Amino acid sequence: MHVHGGDIYGRPVELDFSANLNFLGMPDSVRQAAKEGVDASVHYPDPQCRELRAALSQAEGVPEDWILCGNGAADLIFGLALAEKPRRALVWAPGFYEYEQALHAVGCRVDYLPLRKEEGFAYRAEALEAVTPETDMLFFCNPQNPTGQAASAEFVEALLDRCRKTGTLCVADECFLEFLDLEEQFSAKPSLGSMENLFVLKAFTKLYAMPGLRLGYGLCGDTGRLARMKEVLQPWSVSVPAQRAGAAALKETEYVRRTQALVRQERRFLREGIGRLGGRVYGSKANFIFFQGPEDLAEFCLARGILIRDCRNYRGLGPGCYRVAVRSREENSRLLEVLRERMA
Amino acid sequence: MHVHGGDIYGRPVELDFSANLNFLGMPDSVRQAAKEGVDASVHYPDPQCRELRAALSQAEGVPEDWILCGNGAADLIFGLALAEKPRRALVWAPGFYEYEQALHAVGCRVDYLPLRKEEGFAYRAEALEAVTPETDMLFFCNPQNPTGQAASAEFVEALLDRCRKTGTLCVADECFLEFLDLEEQFSAKPSLGSMENLFVLKAFTKLYAMPGLRLGYGLCGDTGRLARMKEVLQPWSVSVPAQRAGAAALKETEYVRRTQALVRQERRFLREGIGRLGGRVYGSKANFIFFQGPEDLAEFCLARGILIRDCRNYRGLGPGCYRVAVRSREENSRLLEVLRERMA
Repeated sequence: MHVHGGDIYGRPVELDFSANLNFLGMPDSVRQAAKEGVDASVHYPDPQCRELRAALSQAEGVPEDWILCGNGAADLIFGLALAEKPRRALVWAPGFYEYEQALHAVGCRVDYLPLRKEEGFAYRAEALEAVTPETDMLFFCNPQNPTGQAASAEFVEALLDRCRKTGTLCVADECFLEFLDLEEQFSAKPSLGSMENLFVLKAFTKLYAMPGLRLGYGLCGDTGRLARMKEVLQPWSVSVPAQRAGAAALKETEYVRRTQALVRQERRFLREGIGRLGGRVYGSKANFIFFQGPEDLAEFCLARGILIRDCRNYRGLGPGCYRVAVRSREENSRLLEVLRERMA
Repeated sequence: MHVHGGDIYGRPVELDFSANLNFLGMPDSVRQAAKEGVDASVHYPDPQCRELRAALSQAEGVPEDWILCGNGAADLIFGLALAEKPRRALVWAPGFYEYEQALHAVGCRVDYLPLRKEEGFAYRAEALEAVTPETDMLFFCNPQNPTGQAASAEFVEALLDRCRKTGTLCVADECFLEFLDLEEQFSAKPSLGSMENLFVLKAFTKLYAMPGLRLGYGLCGDTGRLARMKEVLQPWSVSVPAQRAGAAALKETEYVRRTQALVRQERRFLREGIGRLGGRVYGSKANFIFFQGPEDLAEFCLARGILIRDCRNYRGLGPGCYRVAVRSREENSRLLEVLRERMA
């Protein structure tokens, strides 16, 4: 079984830096709505997520029938693979394991577009030559996980143009987009209306710190594609607590603004701190820091109650690569203390 | 989109008889545990459901590594289809739509074993001749949904024998088994140890009235099969509230006993009541009644705030077939009053 970040179970974890979650925690209104959702769970969930989709339509500025909700973004990734049954697909490496897991589940050949250390793991337009009419599907994560690299507006445009030409279904995973500084948030969303082969993936998990509730959604201007996905997904995949929590979360605009300001400040603090300890930091423009350090660092931290993401099991990475979430000043300081013990 | 029972959203429903849920409602301990699970949802769910599987192992009397949990039983049905990629499968008709939906999603040819009205929709051993070495998978629901027919011990044994001989993966859906009278509960479970091609499907949904939380599980003695399923399912499919609720539910043994006694009593009341109104009742040995009545009955009931399951969209059934859940005496009496208005 592939090991992910965030698995705090069966381990002595006091502080979890391995999952990239909003360190402000779940807003009270979201928690309350989810608990009311527990009371309402004597009924099946609304298979059409009507209230949640109405709220998302408002928040995202897209029609309701362009929206499909799922049991976390991962549910939609599997649903896409199963509905599309691509024969050949491209993913960037390193990247989120679920893309290739879902593609392999339907027998798809997966090729990898390398993100190179010597190029700072940056997205490069040259790589897009590998996207051909034979490429049925392409997963694109912006900002990238685990590196935290953001794609420029030019790169996003070049990528979409290429997929328009080749007819490749472009799945733009923007689950971390809101953690970028505003001037770096180049969403693919504005192209939804003009590009049927674009699917934008989003989640409540990270921004609202509700990974345990499972809620993600996809946006697509091709309603036929969404209908085909519904055909291969169970009708009740989104629980009642998740639907209620999501609708409540969308009202938390002030919380999101506060998050963005705090993440910006703490990201700099943590980046600089790790840099001063000699850690080589790459990308790291979202709410997590990606760096190189000693090969036993994760083990060292865990012995001190801190879980960090050892990235050696990402394709294209090896021992000594780590990802840590940006958390509160107190927690970040505690992490830096522990890192100092090993790295200084 | 296929229409199921239990969709109370966007309709003026005061009483939902369309979903086969325990009318005692969710036990308080389960509700409380799920709410604590909301608080704990700032972390990802345990992808291995360790605590829940330990509790299930105790309750079911099977090893922990024979258990796989999912986002409702439907999640496991799709996981089975995707992991096994059967080319040919058999399902009974009428039957639960998700079996064929999941099979079609992986391009499987589905053939139907008819349950005939003139035979009271009973399972018949003769039908098993259709199970051949070419049959990769077979779904078997006991008690059957929507008819509420229970399989005899002899039939279960004959079915398993046949699948042993043909090498067919037998998926025994026992989501409603606990609602049968004790002397009719013939589970396939005792064969798990001797039959690698047996998968027993169960859910918390109906027995503990928690359909909105989404929790089901599968039992299989072939741990390699479960590993292949994990390869095609997302790691976090079971939410934290669902995992907590499930562990709490398994302690509710007194609630289950009370349920069984009350369902037995109210089932008789409702069967006899519908029979007296001239409704032709079939099977109905679980916590729901299956009967024939006037073709506009569902519409008539809905206009009076009562949702019943119009079964005309089940394969092999047509207009005038209905399923109603067994509920409390007061609710059942209210239903009978409304039925009387139309049927008497």
